[in-house]
Amino acid sequence: MPNEIQVTVIGGGSTYTPELMEGFIESWAELPVRRITLMDIDGDRLAVLGGLATRMVQAAGVPIEVTTTQDQRRAIEGSDFVISQIRVGGMAARLLDETIPPQFGVIGQETTGPGGFAKAMRTIPVALRIARDIQELAPGAFLVNFTNPAGLITEALLRYSPVRTIGLCNLPIGTEMRLSKRLGVDRAHLSLDWVGLNHLNWTRGAALDGKDVWPTVFEEELQEARQRSEDGWGFSASLLDSLGMIPCGYLNYYYNHDRMLAKQRSAGQTRAQEVQDIERQLLAMFQDPGLKEKPRLLEKRGGAYYSKVAVSLLSAIANSRHEIHIVNTQNRGAIPDLPYHAVVEVPCVIDAAGARPLITSPLPPAVRGLVQAVKAYEDLAVEAGAEGDRQKALQALLAHPLTPSFDAAQGLLQALFDAHRQNLPQFFSAA
Amino acid sequence: MPNEIQVTVIGGGSTYTPELMEGFIESWAELPVRRITLMDIDGDRLAVLGGLATRMVQAAGVPIEVTTTQDQRRAIEGSDFVISQIRVGGMAARLLDETIPPQFGVIGQETTGPGGFAKAMRTIPVALRIARDIQELAPGAFLVNFTNPAGLITEALLRYSPVRTIGLCNLPIGTEMRLSKRLGVDRAHLSLDWVGLNHLNWTRGAALDGKDVWPTVFEEELQEARQRSEDGWGFSASLLDSLGMIPCGYLNYYYNHDRMLAKQRSAGQTRAQEVQDIERQLLAMFQDPGLKEKPRLLEKRGGAYYSKVAVSLLSAIANSRHEIHIVNTQNRGAIPDLPYHAVVEVPCVIDAAGARPLITSPLPPAVRGLVQAVKAYEDLAVEAGAEGDRQKALQALLAHPLTPSFDAAQGLLQALFDAHRQNLPQFFSAA
Amino acid sequence: MPNEIQVTVIGGGSTYTPELMEGFIESWAELPVRRITLMDIDGDRLAVLGGLATRMVQAAGVPIEVTTTQDQRRAIEGSDFVISQIRVGGMAARLLDETIPPQFGVIGQETTGPGGFAKAMRTIPVALRIARDIQELAPGAFLVNFTNPAGLITEALLRYSPVRTIGLCNLPIGTEMRLSKRLGVDRAHLSLDWVGLNHLNWTRGAALDGKDVWPTVFEEELQEARQRSEDGWGFSASLLDSLGMIPCGYLNYYYNHDRMLAKQRSAGQTRAQEVQDIERQLLAMFQDPGLKEKPRLLEKRGGAYYSKVAVSLLSAIANSRHEIHIVNTQNRGAIPDLPYHAVVEVPCVIDAAGARPLITSPLPPAVRGLVQAVKAYEDLAVEAGAEGDRQKALQALLAHPLTPSFDAAQGLLQALFDAHRQNLPQFFSAA
Amino acid sequence: MPNEIQVTVIGGGSTYTPELMEGFIESWAELPVRRITLMDIDGDRLAVLGGLATRMVQAAGVPIEVTTTQDQRRAIEGSDFVISQIRVGGMAARLLDETIPPQFGVIGQETTGPGGFAKAMRTIPVALRIARDIQELAPGAFLVNFTNPAGLITEALLRYSPVRTIGLCNLPIGTEMRLSKRLGVDRAHLSLDWVGLNHLNWTRGAALDGKDVWPTVFEEELQEARQRSEDGWGFSASLLDSLGMIPCGYLNYYYNHDRMLAKQRSAGQTRAQEVQDIERQLLAMFQDPGLKEKPRLLEKRGGAYYSKVAVSLLSAIANSRHEIHIVNTQNRGAIPDLPYHAVVEVPCVIDAAGARPLITSPLPPAVRGLVQAVKAYEDLAVEAGAEGDRQKALQALLAHPLTPSFDAAQGLLQALFDAHRQNLPQFFSAA
Repeated sequence: MPNEIQVTVIGGGSTYTPELMEGFIESWAELPVRRITLMDIDGDRLAVLGGLATRMVQAAGVPIEVTTTQDQRRAIEGSDFVISQIRVGGMAARLLDETIPPQFGVIGQETTGPGGFAKAMRTIPVALRIARDIQELAPGAFLVNFTNPAGLITEALLRYSPVRTIGLCNLPIGTEMRLSKRLGVDRAHLSLDWVGLNHLNWTRGAALDGKDVWPTVFEEELQEARQRSEDGWGFSASLLDSLGMIPCGYLNYYYNHDRMLAKQRSAGQTRAQEVQDIERQLLAMFQDPGLKEKPRLLEKRGGAYYSKVAVSLLSAIANSRHEIHIVNTQNRGAIPDLPYHAVVEVPCVIDAAGARPLITSPLPPAVRGLVQAVKAYEDLAVEAGAEGDRQKALQALLAHPLTPSFDAAQGLLQALFDAHRQNLPQFFSAA
Repeated sequence: MPNEIQVTVIGGGSTYTPELMEGFIESWAELPVRRITLMDIDGDRLAVLGGLATRMVQAAGVPIEVTTTQDQRRAIEGSDFVISQIRVGGMAARLLDETIPPQFGVIGQETTGPGGFAKAMRTIPVALRIARDIQELAPGAFLVNFTNPAGLITEALLRYSPVRTIGLCNLPIGTEMRLSKRLGVDRAHLSLDWVGLNHLNWTRGAALDGKDVWPTVFEEELQEARQRSEDGWGFSASLLDSLGMIPCGYLNYYYNHDRMLAKQRSAGQTRAQEVQDIERQLLAMFQDPGLKEKPRLLEKRGGAYYSKVAVSLLSAIANSRHEIHIVNTQNRGAIPDLPYHAVVEVPCVIDAAGARPLITSPLPPAVRGLVQAVKAYEDLAVEAGAEGDRQKALQALLAHPLTPSFDAAQGLLQALFDAHRQNLPQFFSAA
Repeated sequence: MPNEIQVTVIGGGSTYTPELMEGFIESWAELPVRRITLMDIDGDRLAVLGGLATRMVQAAGVPIEVTTTQDQRRAIEGSDFVISQIRVGGMAARLLDETIPPQFGVIGQETTGPGGFAKAMRTIPVALRIARDIQELAPGAFLVNFTNPAGLITEALLRYSPVRTIGLCNLPIGTEMRLSKRLGVDRAHLSLDWVGLNHLNWTRGAALDGKDVWPTVFEEELQEARQRSEDGWGFSASLLDSLGMIPCGYLNYYYNHDRMLAKQRSAGQTRAQEVQDIERQLLAMFQDPGLKEKPRLLEKRGGAYYSKVAVSLLSAIANSRHEIHIVNTQNRGAIPDLPYHAVVEVPCVIDAAGARPLITSPLPPAVRGLVQAVKAYEDLAVEAGAEGDRQKALQALLAHPLTPSFDAAQGLLQALFDAHRQNLPQFFSAA
Repeated sequence: MPNEIQVTVIGGGSTYTPELMEGFIESWAELPVRRITLMDIDGDRLAVLGGLATRMVQAAGVPIEVTTTQDQRRAIEGSDFVISQIRVGGMAARLLDETIPPQFGVIGQETTGPGGFAKAMRTIPVALRIARDIQELAPGAFLVNFTNPAGLITEALLRYSPVRTIGLCNLPIGTEMRLSKRLGVDRAHLSLDWVGLNHLNWTRGAALDGKDVWPTVFEEELQEARQRSEDGWGFSASLLDSLGMIPCGYLNYYYNHDRMLAKQRSAGQTRAQEVQDIERQLLAMFQDPGLKEKPRLLEKRGGAYYSKVAVSLLSAIANSRHEIHIVNTQNRGAIPDLPYHAVVEVPCVIDAAGARPLITSPLPPAVRGLVQAVKAYEDLAVEAGAEGDRQKALQALLAHPLTPSFDAAQGLLQALFDAHRQNLPQFFSAA
């Protein structure tokens, strides 16, 4: 396979694409991709990003052919890897996801809580259509899902489609980078004991070339926390000390819930608006025919190491190296406290067979209930989104730990469904 | 055994005692108790209740001997059944449990949330001391635990003691009574499919002499809900319809969380204060030498059917009838979504072997996460209370779904421990 | 329901029928059956048994209407309880089941090993046809399966049909009778801790009115064993002592395997032939118009207490008493070492909801592997029989612990299929 | 670590040692071992093997220091890897294990059945003493157990000691070698889906660089089987076809049981005797001062690829490569049909953390029961051997699927204990 690899990027008009291209170019020696097809429903962005991608490849002198298309089926046919990085409804929809929930006293966030729920409802039918096309036109291909909420979308794909899907997030690599830098070591030598769900996980151990370095790593984390201001983003030393683990950033919405909610309510603009501004600038830059590499501004867009995660995963599969990556896959008993079919984010062996989770120890009770509660919400949300079942949609919102009451769940469902109606075909049948 | 039954009531000075005595008197034919020992650390109340209990027995003409003692070991020795109905710290402590949490934006309630947590911390060491005395002085006796939070205390007893303990609550019988009355049938013919934990459960089915009557029962519940005012205690028809189950009343603190919290914050007096008033009146009445039966005012005290639950349980054990009672006992696989050792509240077969849970179907995802989250809290609270472990105490409060943030958990722990210090010997070692 | 109960007996021409009639007559006060329909494909036997049944009812003066029919659908329509006591292929087929396996060095037995396998293959399609008729013509009826191999047939019914099926065997009541007689107590007061599968089970505890009497019971069993001849039927004291449990009689085929096999090989006639002789005599007797009750000779036929088991089960269901009976039902976690869907023979609560297994403790390792191995065989046999899958049939025989080799499995399959070809329509499609 | 690796070989006087030395010499570049300590209780053999080992190292010019000692504690102190290749009682004891069981009509084999049971009883106390010395004198070292019965001894070590133990067998590599040779590919590219216990396993899948090549591999296996004589060692095409998997050779004792037993009974000499002859010749050769490499005759000794397995495992750990090796380790949910703590033989990720099993799919029912039955036997045997419990020893033999009856179990236990008495201190306390 390595000599003939074809990669398809659904949502190829994303401003993330140059980052991804850079990755493929830099890793060409170990992952000799022959063709990259960028697919997007937005022809204008596709033209801009396709142009830049082609210039990047040429400037680097690697023999990758870049093509663009608005036809999903054509894009997928014969592909070995399909990367999904879509955003159904675009930034406008994200803005609604971030601003509607706070009106009900609930965190408004792209992936966590009702915002992530609404994004999932819009995305699941589109993701399943991608999977159906793969099943028909590129059977055997891997679907690498970056689309958020990544765990939930991956679970929908694995439950409603036979396509070999792996869910990716850049949090694990980001944490590995941050901690290895602090230790002054190369990331390749550090392995983390990471457990939980996507955007709801904890680092509970670290080894450097197999030697336990957790006491050092954790002590440094405590030190850093002690210097942190008490009311901002990030966890207090007391919280870290109480858990004995390092929570991922999204856990701020739980552990510092009131503070985060207050900030959202007083904030002048949301993250969606910031990102919209950055994207406008980026797209303008990308059109410059002189630009032949990824501009530095892209780093403000978020998604750091995004290409590294994706390209190294593809390479581990294509070369059937038995590397350990932290990805989203079916539990199958790896975390004994969660259902067999639940998608979890844990260290997995990656090779040509895909991702196989490593057995891990049970969740400590300090976080077990929260993970189980969010997973129950995800179970319901996946089914609601795939089946267009309003009853399950309401149950999902009610089951989410951040929803404060049934009234709020009901109000939120109504408001989110009204706002996103045109992107929720499964719930609104044609007149 | 039936002819020689000895019953010990720890907390015999409770105003519930006349209710209990009435039960033993009325059921004497099937449960021929020879002696009832009332034990209490409060000598005054013991004198009052002991006097009334003796007069009741004499008036009824049943050959039960009533004795009182402040010596727990003497009370327990040779007993067949020990009933625990204690309140460590009395009503004064309960008042703190109800008023401290709202200062942190959290529900203040006797058994649910941080109030129940504080009560558990005070109670677990005392409950375990009772169990140790039983183990030594009445091996083979059953310990019937009514003491709240009943599920959590029962779990502490079953995890830290070999004594055969069954946890009782009057919610199941109350629900059976309410539903059977509405159907116009005798409670004995109605059996409920009841699932969950103590004070966190749902009725999800009903059979009348084995015939499924759930559609009727649930439709009547919906009718009643439709006539209910939208903002009071109780569940809306939409909520019921969404769940397809009838939640127990305590679920108001979750499903109607904001409304309940607002009420608590604006309320003139708490339930603890109301109960204190009623108790004062009751104790005055009880001292009347002319009073020879349970006064009607007692019904306002709460704990309806309390004696029926207790006495029918003892009778089912003593006569080894294979009756089905809804009690708190070790899960052992009955609810597959919860740990093997978790104490759950489910239909059990009751006979001389004690309580054996009936296999039930998995928890529906709409409630599964909430039950698992509260059980994780209980796991931690049980260990914190039994081991005097502050780290686990903090983790427990943090893990509780009603705690909004780590700051709140930390503040609550400090405030509750300060307030109840003298009743928390396991956390405060002697100077 | 009690006043209008209709019972259908499939295989009503069986010589067991008078025993069953006697049970219904004696229990009429608590189980007022209005009509009993005897159905059989053998018109002659049906006439004989129908005549005797009618005379028995009249002589007893109970208002039960007895009808006979060869039409299964007519027999089932509107029934509350369908009792299945069929023998596909009759005693002639049994004779083959008992005589073919020893030719391959394997135990030949009606229910255990290849003999039971062949009987299952013949019976499953017929049993499933009964279930389909119930589903259509008497939905809600209970199917009480006495047909052997009872556990395996019950598992086929529960896996391939939604009909509420309970599998019955007279071994549990036989053991209760034997042990209670020895203790000099009424059986109703004795309850056994019985665990395993049908015809592969052990008694590991006993309680008299809830009091543990196992040490006495087991010591008496040992005493009896010490007086037993070393080489006959029954278990040596050393074996009992080693297990600490009382195995059921069929375990002779495992624990005393070589001795049993040697006996079978040297025996002049098989059990099938003995029973055929007895049946001939019985049928002759039954035709006597003067006979109005069950003849004593019937006791030699086997199936002691058969009617007591059946009638008391029906009564416990009809009156929704929560009695504990040892029956065959779906495991659902009761025995943690066996699959969720496996049919097991354990104490169950019986009421109008049917049979719900009581949680039990894990199987001791001394017997765990044997039970799991036989259950794996049963899994395969059930699927082979229901699906007509020869590959699974061969795997089933190979998986059976009594099959000594693959060659034996293959030879046995061929020989049994050749011998029973006309009764194995699922494996032999029409030319 | 890599630069300072110290390896201890318990049982260093084994004729396997030259093979092992060859492996360390050839792999020195990737696994730079500084010192190899050969320990044995037999000083004569130690001198012979130590001499040859030293000559081999010198001839090869690698800087490995070879030392010998009869003092186990001195040998273990400061070691990184302890390899155990002992044989308690020597070849004389093996001869008894192979010849006693057939007298009871039971397979006599070094690792399978009662022979393996007796070997385990002799070995467990010695293995646990090695573990205790490691715990004290080389905490953190890995114990690599080659000693047979390897699965059972590894389970004893993992259950009764905290030492990090990995159980090794050369069957997996042998199968990989055989199948990759037939495919004409390098073994490194082939990965097998291997499932079961040590000496009781099946290959059920194969991938070449991640591509499924099972249909080809299995078809070739069938072809080979078709050409095989019907009554020798090896499986018939019908058996393979029925299972759809390739059984390991030891399964001949089950699938071709009668044939194997007949052979054993008619055989002139046992494998133990053959091996004794070969060993005598080998030891004579080894003493030749001119011999500086592994002689070819050693291949007849068995244990092919033994050094490759061991050295590549040590290298994967020392270099913390995430390689997948098939080893014996704790199940922890990898095979859902077996207990959490059972030692199983499955593909594991090997790195500095040791061996972590990969999740695998459930056992197919065609083999599930047999594996569970042998595991139940192993559970009992491990406890019997470690605790010196005769009751469990008898239960273990009775639970083994190859034991035909309780009488045989009892007779075998007596005969084996009599024969090996001096090597069973845990069962025979001093007078």
